Parts: sequence; structure tokens; C-alpha cells
Amino acid sequence: MFVKYEDLIKLFTEKLVKHGVEENLAREAATIFADNSCDGVYTHGANRFPRIIRYIDEKVIDFSKVLTEVSTFNAFAKYDGHRGFGPLNAKKAMQIAIDKAKEYGIGGVCLVNNNHWLRGGTYGELALENNMVGICFTNSTGILPPWGGKEPKLGNNPLVMAVPCEGKHILMDMAISQYSYGKLEETRLKGQKLPYPGGYDENGNLTTDPGAIEKSLRALPIGYWKGSSLALLLDLILAVFGAMPTKDISKQKEEVGLSQMFIAIDPTRFESQEYIKSIVDAIIEDVKSATPVDEKSSIRYPGEREYKVRKENLEKGIPVLDEVYKTIIEL
Amino acid sequence: MFVKYEDLIKLFTEKLVKHGVEENLAREAATIFADNSCDGVYTHGANRFPRIIRYIDEKVIDFSKVLTEVSTFNAFAKYDGHRGFGPLNAKKAMQIAIDKAKEYGIGGVCLVNNNHWLRGGTYGELALENNMVGICFTNSTGILPPWGGKEPKLGNNPLVMAVPCEGKHILMDMAISQYSYGKLEETRLKGQKLPYPGGYDENGNLTTDPGAIEKSLRALPIGYWKGSSLALLLDLILAVFGAMPTKDISKQKEEVGLSQMFIAIDPTRFESQEYIKSIVDAIIEDVKSATPVDEKSSIRYPGEREYKVRKENLEKGIPVLDEVYKTIIEL
Repeated sequence: MFVKYEDLIKLFTEKLVKHGVEENLAREAATIFADNSCDGVYTHGANRFPRIIRYIDEKVIDFSKVLTEVSTFNAFAKYDGHRGFGPLNAKKAMQIAIDKAKEYGIGGVCLVNNNHWLRGGTYGELALENNMVGICFTNSTGILPPWGGKEPKLGNNPLVMAVPCEGKHILMDMAISQYSYGKLEETRLKGQKLPYPGGYDENGNLTTDPGAIEKSLRALPIGYWKGSSLALLLDLILAVFGAMPTKDISKQKEEVGLSQMFIAIDPTRFESQEYIKSIVDAIIEDVKSATPVDEKSSIRYPGEREYKVRKENLEKGIPVLDEVYKTIIEL
Repeated sequence: MFVKYEDLIKLFTEKLVKHGVEENLAREAATIFADNSCDGVYTHGANRFPRIIRYIDEKVIDFSKVLTEVSTFNAFAKYDGHRGFGPLNAKKAMQIAIDKAKEYGIGGVCLVNNNHWLRGGTYGELALENNMVGICFTNSTGILPPWGGKEPKLGNNPLVMAVPCEGKHILMDMAISQYSYGKLEETRLKGQKLPYPGGYDENGNLTTDPGAIEKSLRALPIGYWKGSSLALLLDLILAVFGAMPTKDISKQKEEVGLSQMFIAIDPTRFESQEYIKSIVDAIIEDVKSATPVDEKSSIRYPGEREYKVRKENLEKGIPVLDEVYKTIIEL
């Protein structure tokens, strides 16, 4: 079925309030869920909503806990999320980084002791709305083995980069695993193979069989040893600011207490918005001018598909799976 | 043959001075080359030295041109490298970012109109020496096709991340291509195959044959579409601060006029050095405790091998290929 953007926000808000969330916070949180579905990232929108309600009921997440400042040193600050609702805290932290970038040219916030930030794109989006370059990342529970090893000691630690350009929506939201476990499951349920190897089977051979990877727990990081290094470095950077690292997140029953880094830089202090638009447009145009490898392929910039889906969904309504809608209505 | 670290610096300095470089600059540059060879990155050390001398003679690089400030806004600054010697300008730019981080908690410099920075690790090293987290990247000439396209429109744009920890040397220096063209050539000359697919052959099939990739110019970015996005974003971030983008770098006869970004963050404003050491040690220990996939594999952190090689080379002398040494002596 299709639900209007405003109606989805209203529905989420109502349910959050019913489960004890204060109305203003509920509306902010509802908007984040609706935005994710609206951009076509359904896994982090409507599909995820029932789990968050369960977390509230089970007191895994306490919406009343909002981030507080631990300490600030001019352009960089450390905040504590007190294990509140991850995306609300993360959005506020990114806004603080952006405000610092307005004041200092560059600004950063490390948000420790928070929870899952849901979709990393949310914080890149905030950078774009403020004409800022945004670089953000989070740690997470261990799902990837380090290169040369077997057990999943590394998080998939998504890395987000956003570049402002009027009329475009350039936003990379990249997990370090080649495929998410959600994608592996989806592909397996469809009885399909992965287009490229996504991990190892239990005999240590690279495989495109999603079920074999789910069994071995040896999903592949992007670029083999390179993604392994990148996932480790992102966890280490957060840890030196006091974050609970992946190794300890992994020991818990639920994936809670995650930490995030938000960096914003203001290019408009150095180049005009007109120049920024013209150079970004020219680069994207050049990249898109490459000869397609076959008639099916299209060359897209990161964020382009989400932007297109957003426009369509705002117009036609947001697709929500019937069973998901039914579950939400009954919450 | 093996050359002592100090003797290598002396040799490089003499040759640079002979080719018209001012003595102090020559010594600084010589140290960068010697450090790269000392860390086992010979391609960016002694092996590269003769080409730089040629660039000086042909006036492609002008050592007398040092970076100047374009504009500064508190914690972030833009500098112009005036197409001087890339690594010297880049090292100074990273030092400025570090000094800003000391003052503001976080600091950044975008260095435009510079040249090739040689080895990205040099600037991560500087972060480590200053107990800083470092994040640096450069753009470069197009060698990677965008995902879905054929022509090499994207640079391999190395991304560097460094995390300080006493007694360790955690430094990732990661190009976005799965293998460098240098590695492809080396593997082909040895008559070997790549351990994992490194690109496409001329029929559009993934291949481990290095020669086929050299022909098609379709090297693989890490993580297929993911590395393609990352390479593009790094180029775009630099471009919005006024850098010449990859598309224009690629139009030139030589790979000159590259730009770099340097970001430093000071974790010691937020956590003690003792805490930082203890948490980093614990994370690395945990990662290394993974069961090796086979008896040949060892689990290393990024930078570990270079650190070990450095110690060995400082002790036993730095290996320099006889023909390379002969070429340098004759310069």
C-alpha cells in the first residue's frame, strides 16, 4: 500500500506517544522514520519501526534520555547519548558539529554511549541542508572478520560523506561489508545468488551463495584487506574519544551503546555557492559521460537514486508493506 | 645493496642540491624519500627519486615554490601549493592542520594546486608524532572507471587514517583501487596471477590476469560500486574548496596540480594518553586473537608491517636495488 508522507509521520507520532514518548520528541523521531522510508530506505523506516517500539517497551531505549555535553574544546566536542534514541541524539550532535563549522570553518562532535543511528544518510542530509561538507561514521557490533582471521571482530561501521550542491543530492552512505546481512537474507529467500562474492563459505572459499555466508559469518569487507583496515580504523578513532569499541558492543545481548563521529566543514567560507554548484555539476556530468558497460547499466552518483525515489514517494505516497502497516497499526 | 638511513638522506640531499634545490629544502625532501624507503615503501622512496630529479630538470616541479595561505577561517584554512614539491607542501599543510587542532580541538587544511604527495603515510605519521588522529586524502589522475562505465574517470585518491597509541604505529594508507597499476605490472612481469580479481578484461569479465586489466584500463575499485562512490566523493570534497578535479588533472600530460585535504583531531583534550593507549592496545589484542584462517595467515593492524620494516631497515640498512642506486649516483 501507499501512505502519504504526512500521514506516515502522524501514524508514527501517535504510536510513539502511545508508548510513552513525549510529543515533540515523538514527532521528531517519526519524521526520521518517515524520511527513511520516503528515500526508499525502507529497512530503516517503516520496517524498523515495530522493533523500536519493542525496545521502548522493554526499556532497551529510553527516549527521555537526550545527549548532554561531556566537554568542549572550541571546535570539537564530546557528548554522551545516555543510550537514548540513537537518531535523535545523532541528529542533534550533527547539528552541533554544523554550528561549530559555521563558527570555526570546521567542527566536530564525538557522540559516545548513544545507540544505533539507524540510517547514516540522515546526518549527511543535515549537512546538505546547511550547505556543508559532512563526514560521519558510527561503530557497530562485530559482523566482519579481520583480514586473515575467522571470527567477526569488526563492525560494518558505515561511513557517510555528503557534498552540497544546489539541485543535486550527493550523499554516500557506505557500510564496510560488501553486502549487509539483510541483503544476504533477502537474496537467499528469493533463491538467488549474489552478483559478486560476498564472503566465504565454511570451507574458506569465496562464494556468491548468501546462505553459505550466513552460516560461516565470514562476510567480506569491501576490498578484502582494505575494508578490514578501514572498519578497524573507524572503531579506533571513536574509541580514543571514549567510545565503547566494537569488541565490547559485541558482548552485549542487544546492539546498544554505539558511538558516532560527526565532522562538518563549510566550503562557502572559501568558494561561492555558484562556483561550488558549477564545479560539482561539471564533475558529475563528466562521470556520467562514461560509456555504459552495457545497455542495462546507468552511471549514478551516490544519493541520486534516493533523491529520485523521494520525489516519487512524496508525489505518489510511500510504499509500505501491507503486513508491516498492519503491525504498526496494531502497536 | 643496503644503504644506511643517514647515508641515503645525504645522497638524496646532495643530488637535489646539485639540481638546484636550496639546501634546507633539499634535506627535508631527502628525508621524506629516505623515510619512505626505510618503511619499505620503496616505490615512493629511492625508486621514485630519479623521476623527481627529471621533473626538476624539466621544470615540471619548482622546488622554490612553497605553499602560501589563500584564506583562513579559524580552524580551517585553504592553501595554494603553487605546484611546488608535493610532499614538502603537504607536510607543512598537515602541520598547520595539527597546530589548528592544538588550538581548536579539530583543524583542517585544504591544499590546492599542489603536486603528487608521494606517500600518504607521511602525513599520517606526522599526526602520530603529535598524538593526533589524522584523516587525509588526495585526488589524482583518472585510473578507475565509475561503476557502470568504461573510461577511467575516477582517481585512486588515497585515503589516510592514523590513530595515536604509544608503542604502536596505527596508520592506514589506502588507495581506492584494489591493486595499483604498479602492482599489476609487477605481477605480470613475474608471470603470476592476482590473488583476487583486480579488474575487467576487454570482454567485460572480472579477471585475475594483470595484463588484461592493464589493457582494458578497467581496474576495480574496492568493493565494486562502493569504492567508485568513495573515490568520487573524495574528489568532490576537494573540488568544492577550489581543487582542480580529477577530470581536469587527467587532461594534462603529467600528473600535476593535485590537491589534498588534511584533518587533525586532538583526542588528548578528551581522554588521557594512558586511557588512549589502554583502549587501543585492548582493541588490537582482541582483533589479533581471531583464529587465523590458515597456518600462513597473520592478523596485522594497518601500519604494523611498515613499523617492523622500519626498525629492521634502521638496523641493517635500507635495501636499494643496485640499478636504482647506480642511477641515483649518476644523477
